[in-house]
Amino acid sequence: MSSAPLSSEPRSQVDDPSSLVMRFGADAPLLMDAGVALGPWQIAYQTYGTLNADRSNAVLICHALTGDQHVANANPVTGKPGWWTTMVGPGRPVDTDRFFVICANVIGGCMGTTGPASIDPATGEPYALDFPVVTIRDMVRAQAALIDRLGIESLFCVVGGSMGGMQVLQWAVSYPERVFSALPIATAARHSAQNIAFHEVGRQAVMADPDWRGGRYLTEGTRPSKGLAVARMGAHITYLSEMALHRKFGRNFQDRSAPTFSFDADFQIESYLRYQGIAFVERFDANSYLYVTRAMDYFDLAAEHGGSLARAFKGTATRFCVISFTSDWLFPTSDSRAIVHALNAAAASVAFVEVESDKGHDAFLLDEPEMFAAARGFIDAAARIRGIA
Amino acid sequence: MSSAPLSSEPRSQVDDPSSLVMRFGADAPLLMDAGVALGPWQIAYQTYGTLNADRSNAVLICHALTGDQHVANANPVTGKPGWWTTMVGPGRPVDTDRFFVICANVIGGCMGTTGPASIDPATGEPYALDFPVVTIRDMVRAQAALIDRLGIESLFCVVGGSMGGMQVLQWAVSYPERVFSALPIATAARHSAQNIAFHEVGRQAVMADPDWRGGRYLTEGTRPSKGLAVARMGAHITYLSEMALHRKFGRNFQDRSAPTFSFDADFQIESYLRYQGIAFVERFDANSYLYVTRAMDYFDLAAEHGGSLARAFKGTATRFCVISFTSDWLFPTSDSRAIVHALNAAAASVAFVEVESDKGHDAFLLDEPEMFAAARGFIDAAARIRGIA
Repeated sequence: MSSAPLSSEPRSQVDDPSSLVMRFGADAPLLMDAGVALGPWQIAYQTYGTLNADRSNAVLICHALTGDQHVANANPVTGKPGWWTTMVGPGRPVDTDRFFVICANVIGGCMGTTGPASIDPATGEPYALDFPVVTIRDMVRAQAALIDRLGIESLFCVVGGSMGGMQVLQWAVSYPERVFSALPIATAARHSAQNIAFHEVGRQAVMADPDWRGGRYLTEGTRPSKGLAVARMGAHITYLSEMALHRKFGRNFQDRSAPTFSFDADFQIESYLRYQGIAFVERFDANSYLYVTRAMDYFDLAAEHGGSLARAFKGTATRFCVISFTSDWLFPTSDSRAIVHALNAAAASVAFVEVESDKGHDAFLLDEPEMFAAARGFIDAAARIRGIA
Repeated sequence: MSSAPLSSEPRSQVDDPSSLVMRFGADAPLLMDAGVALGPWQIAYQTYGTLNADRSNAVLICHALTGDQHVANANPVTGKPGWWTTMVGPGRPVDTDRFFVICANVIGGCMGTTGPASIDPATGEPYALDFPVVTIRDMVRAQAALIDRLGIESLFCVVGGSMGGMQVLQWAVSYPERVFSALPIATAARHSAQNIAFHEVGRQAVMADPDWRGGRYLTEGTRPSKGLAVARMGAHITYLSEMALHRKFGRNFQDRSAPTFSFDADFQIESYLRYQGIAFVERFDANSYLYVTRAMDYFDLAAEHGGSLARAFKGTATRFCVISFTSDWLFPTSDSRAIVHALNAAAASVAFVEVESDKGHDAFLLDEPEMFAAARGFIDAAARIRGIA
């Protein structure tokens, strides 16, 4: 385990110096669904709190599509607070005074874990599209390898929203004996046709940018910033709700009361979206965006089990709490209900909370007291059962 | 009135030789909301059926964002049937055996009506972004000028869906005495923040394409095909519904049963969307896409009347029938209800039909018997009242 050195190379090609990094040699490759043995490889992560003597209080937080390991500390790239400080921290539902919390950058990501911007040892250049396509199961395999190295046999809880929730579900299915409790939020057991469609538009936007260079932009010294910004703008709409957009922006004009009759960002919503696109490009690698969206598209937990989600969960002893939001149209409550029905059919322990919110999919990242209360109640009860002080 | 000659120039720069064209000289400019007097200008249109002696049986069909005047005849560009042959034709709800039907390409469009691809007489080159920004009211003004020239004082009915429905509403407000009946379908009296957001993403996709050349691609001999295709792909998703996508494509793989672990069009939905993008670029001008989406964004019928939609309709004698679809999330039923409430407040004659359909916004273009029945009943009743045989 070591921290990576600072470097003047583009950010996405180097380790994140503020994170811990677990390195795996060519003798410990990551066996991926694409049929590739990836090695050497590494996984960048953060920890918070202290592992107890029983090693029974570890909580794994799984991040979403554009998230990273900086769940509860300032992000070294943006300088902003961690992405889930409302959920994770001292006195928070995932209480770092009680639990040893781990959050790792996903395989295929761009914050220090091996991904398409990493150097391919075979060529000495960034992998680009030579990086194997990643699945949610590969992400979980990489996390399991990290947990192994940390000497943790069983996780007290695995928690995540959106793509993080997909990893939570995959953890419970791939390693049921290693997951005491699971808290999947605003997620689905499989990606819908509509969601695949939105992702495909984003990928096409990236790949249409001539600066993408067939994926070899790092080698060629370009960046597909415009394409990636367009992808982000489109995706960002799907994270919100019509009501949230209406309340926040409505049809308000930017800095004036009448239209300019131009293609400038006349409406506040336009200005906001453009900012989202530009800010995203500063912190995210375009090829990682392709890989991580692809992983979500491929996710179909039942497919591994003859098309039966209930069979995927059969015999599980993991305790589940499933949370959805009323205005989330990207991962609607019906997706969460399908998970709950399968868990019921598998005779699993499951609680289900649909939180009333008009903030859309992003609600899971926002101040939603009902979500915090549900998470706190579920985690506290599970901790009592496991005998965590 | 004359048909335009065939030409070897790019399609979007020339008239549509299969359409009628009404020309207006510099002495009869179109006075636009942007404060510009556009002239000379022209409007390309199609007619079906025969104007009766009273000139009382004229029906104006207003087309949607990417539609054109070829509502009930084969499209000269694609070779496909007209875009609304289920609604307009002999024996159809808009019966061309009874009514004189007119459909004109909107101002700012690219099928023969003056738009950004037309030649700017001041420079001898295509207008590109020097074309004035267009509004829905400008589109209706242009249609009114055409109707004037055709010697039609009052339209029996104005019919349209989506952006066509916006024009229907604008007609009823701008020229109430010239609209006997109005049939706005799957539309809104103002464009929502979310819809503006989707349009902005599409425009940014076009403008991010280096072949757009600041809008001067026709002069410079390029075409922003990739950007326009991405814009269309994104928009196309919004025309459907999650249920329609699930039923039609689900998570089915293309020509195989397992993933390829690549960025090829692995899923059928991806292949379908890419085809939609490519096909669209063949028939539509990129700058027209910017202008026409912008017109929709600016549409806010109440804004012209102190923010009161009811005031906009005050005193109207027009008979309305408003139709929406249950699964339309782009122009949801709540948008239609707002129109109906305003019409009720204005003591107007209004019928409202919410059609049960899982096909999303595009339902208005598809085989929806309940829509046809409602349209037929409304039109037949209005024709009896007006004394049309």
